[in-house]
Amino acid sequence: MNDLNRRELLAGAAAIGAASVLPLIGLKEASAAAPAAAAQAPGFYRYKVGAIECTSINDGVFLRPIDDFVSNVPKEKAQAEAEAAYMPKGMVAVPFNPQLVNTGSKLVLIDCGLGAGMLEPSKGRVGRLMQNLAAAGVDPKSIDAVVLSHLHPDHTNGLRAADGSMAFPNAEIMVPAKEWEFWMSDENAAKAQSNEMMKGYFANAKKVYTGIESKVTKYDWGKEVGPGITAIAAVGHTPGHTTFAIASGGSTVLIQSDVTNIPEFFLRNPDWHVAYDTDPALAQETRHTFYDMAAAEKAMVVGFHFTFPSIGHVEKDGTKYRLVPAAWNPVI
Amino acid sequence: MNDLNRRELLAGAAAIGAASVLPLIGLKEASAAAPAAAAQAPGFYRYKVGAIECTSINDGVFLRPIDDFVSNVPKEKAQAEAEAAYMPKGMVAVPFNPQLVNTGSKLVLIDCGLGAGMLEPSKGRVGRLMQNLAAAGVDPKSIDAVVLSHLHPDHTNGLRAADGSMAFPNAEIMVPAKEWEFWMSDENAAKAQSNEMMKGYFANAKKVYTGIESKVTKYDWGKEVGPGITAIAAVGHTPGHTTFAIASGGSTVLIQSDVTNIPEFFLRNPDWHVAYDTDPALAQETRHTFYDMAAAEKAMVVGFHFTFPSIGHVEKDGTKYRLVPAAWNPVI
Repeated sequence: MNDLNRRELLAGAAAIGAASVLPLIGLKEASAAAPAAAAQAPGFYRYKVGAIECTSINDGVFLRPIDDFVSNVPKEKAQAEAEAAYMPKGMVAVPFNPQLVNTGSKLVLIDCGLGAGMLEPSKGRVGRLMQNLAAAGVDPKSIDAVVLSHLHPDHTNGLRAADGSMAFPNAEIMVPAKEWEFWMSDENAAKAQSNEMMKGYFANAKKVYTGIESKVTKYDWGKEVGPGITAIAAVGHTPGHTTFAIASGGSTVLIQSDVTNIPEFFLRNPDWHVAYDTDPALAQETRHTFYDMAAAEKAMVVGFHFTFPSIGHVEKDGTKYRLVPAAWNPVI
Repeated sequence: MNDLNRRELLAGAAAIGAASVLPLIGLKEASAAAPAAAAQAPGFYRYKVGAIECTSINDGVFLRPIDDFVSNVPKEKAQAEAEAAYMPKGMVAVPFNPQLVNTGSKLVLIDCGLGAGMLEPSKGRVGRLMQNLAAAGVDPKSIDAVVLSHLHPDHTNGLRAADGSMAFPNAEIMVPAKEWEFWMSDENAAKAQSNEMMKGYFANAKKVYTGIESKVTKYDWGKEVGPGITAIAAVGHTPGHTTFAIASGGSTVLIQSDVTNIPEFFLRNPDWHVAYDTDPALAQETRHTFYDMAAAEKAMVVGFHFTFPSIGHVEKDGTKYRLVPAAWNPVI
């Protein structure tokens, strides 16, 4: 009764696939009845935290070679993990997801992506924040505050439009006090000149913030950066790296920022170090602290580098952790 | 240096959340600066299979009490699994995802959802196919064929608009020959009168197809139902239950239809039986056959009842299986 079998299911299908390639050639042009859309759906997704309405806004996905992406394991090991996560051969896919938080009185954007043209040629894979904000019906002029978790380019460069003007012209810019202190110090920058990565980060921070210093509010940990949004230190990735708890009506969501970079690598292997950490050992310690708590509390976690919509729960799995992505909600 | 701690992260955030509820009251009305969007992003997602462009179209998510959803385990066990999957307390979330396949020459819709008003009151959670098709820029009149995997209401009722007219007026309707034979038989219907569920299914199939019999093409397994789309038997769930392999340019995707209902229950526990199976033991056998193959081949699988966008890879996990959802691709 059950005629499902391997040959029919896979080999057969592949053979049919090969046969069916021929008639497909040129059909995109030939068939007005079924033109290809050739465009993805907009990358925004809404979720509620009590009375607060949040929107995950995808800034795209960066594909990079594995190379030295993980600093403390052999490339082959990282490559095997990438393949186990079904990433493109030899590559790591790193998504970027700023969060828009509508507290009811304020529209707060937490992190603002790579900005225009920062990682070109990306084939349109990155720098998608503005078009996804537009798709979500959000005017950049309506954003009251941009709160930065830290000053790495993929989080902060979206402050500037391609012409250098302010992408969110009416927004207060809020930077962790410790982060500002670290990256704006000429002394620290001078010390970093022998490290290409750090040198680049210092130069980038300077480039983004020069001339707009007076627009920047420095914020402290343990305090609200907006109604219901509390800043929480989670250092190591950078000296001022910050996470956020959004809380309303008895519900809480944790914005983990970069406590882990991609979960496929650094939640599965919390002792692996991403190349971008300022203090990898401290980042590792923070990762365990944060995720032991989040797992114990069954907290909802949002990750800047989780796959869009970038929301899930995290469970302990022996000495590892596992991300359980949240189910898509068709209504809010 | 690292001041992240449990009290600040969770108890503190919760306290702040409670405090911040007061100023939020009424702000939706009061603040023109930040009105709530109160609407979810459209539920469509595109992916390529070689030269073929597919779109997963969400018809919504049905929330039902657990009750007898799993027919062969105690309710408490099912409830524990639902909670482990972070479903709403005491409930099961069942998503519905028809697939639109643009072969280049034909626009084929595989399954068509619950239709208008079939499961009201659903608070808008189901019956979303037409609005998500519209969001994807697809005119229902442009669909050339609707291919049904089987004749259960959540797959076939979308054929009819609320007024009973054809929702896809220019589409050939394609039904598995074995499925048509089973559900259209008055003899089978008469035998099913003592079983409320089966009685309902026979009546529903009659209601949907009466008057449009001449529009229906009966198709056989092992053959193409559209260019590059091969029908493959996977019986048990219903006598004619069908899966599909979409193949082009060396790539293959398996449309598993209802080989499992929600993966959180029936991939994790492949020997659990969903209440809707005609022959649960055969469905269980098919499930193992299908997923042992899919896991061995690392095949991309699309599930009608997977959470949107309903695409992933499936791995063996001892005697269980685990779904690894596909990463969101911002471009196609």
